[in-house]
Amino acid sequence: MNEKNLGISLLLDFYGDMLTDKQKEVIEFYYDEDLSLAEIAEHAQITRQGVRDCIKRGEATLLNMEEKLGLAKKFNQMRTSLEEIENAASAIIQINERFCFSKDIGELAKKITEKSQELCED
Amino acid sequence: MNEKNLGISLLLDFYGDMLTDKQKEVIEFYYDEDLSLAEIAEHAQITRQGVRDCIKRGEATLLNMEEKLGLAKKFNQMRTSLEEIENAASAIIQINERFCFSKDIGELAKKITEKSQELCED
Repeated sequence: MNEKNLGISLLLDFYGDMLTDKQKEVIEFYYDEDLSLAEIAEHAQITRQGVRDCIKRGEATLLNMEEKLGLAKKFNQMRTSLEEIENAASAIIQINERFCFSKDIGELAKKITEKSQELCED
Repeated sequence: MNEKNLGISLLLDFYGDMLTDKQKEVIEFYYDEDLSLAEIAEHAQITRQGVRDCIKRGEATLLNMEEKLGLAKKFNQMRTSLEEIENAASAIIQINERFCFSKDIGELAKKITEKSQELCED
């Protein structure tokens, strides 16, 4: 655990609720708040080795779930496509404004950028 | 289990790989291929009561996962937004064609409809 695996933080967003409360708390301290093992041990009132074991078990659950379900990967691919949609809609807005074509096209394209941004933020 | 819960079939797409092989097989027979308990029992070489228990346990796992993670609900909300994006892009294509505004706008809007369709099908 010398190098923190940043992917774990992402998996935590998807599958965090499948961990025990203790695992979730400890892994959030470690990955999201960047506390050291010693700091977490003090917080959680367990030994440093206990913290280490708890993180390892939690990580294994998260990685196993992603290996089986692949939903984080799927959402990330979605995000890439949504960015492409947003860029295309922005380009439509620019062309439409430059040539003063149509108020309706401008509004429809704006709706597309807003919806795709919303979806990316979810 | 008189009325089959159609939601289970959707949850199976998301969380099916978290079931045991036997649970997955039996639930797919029951929900996706619409076999009767007796038919599944013959196929899977277990008793009718065994099939019933297997389905109940599998359903409980799927429902529990959705309750904790809510990913099927999240994907469904995404799908609704993607349909709105696709409709807006189709409207842009229509207006653009009617007034012969711009080849570029037509191509960009077509790209948006294609990307949003792809995402809906995933």
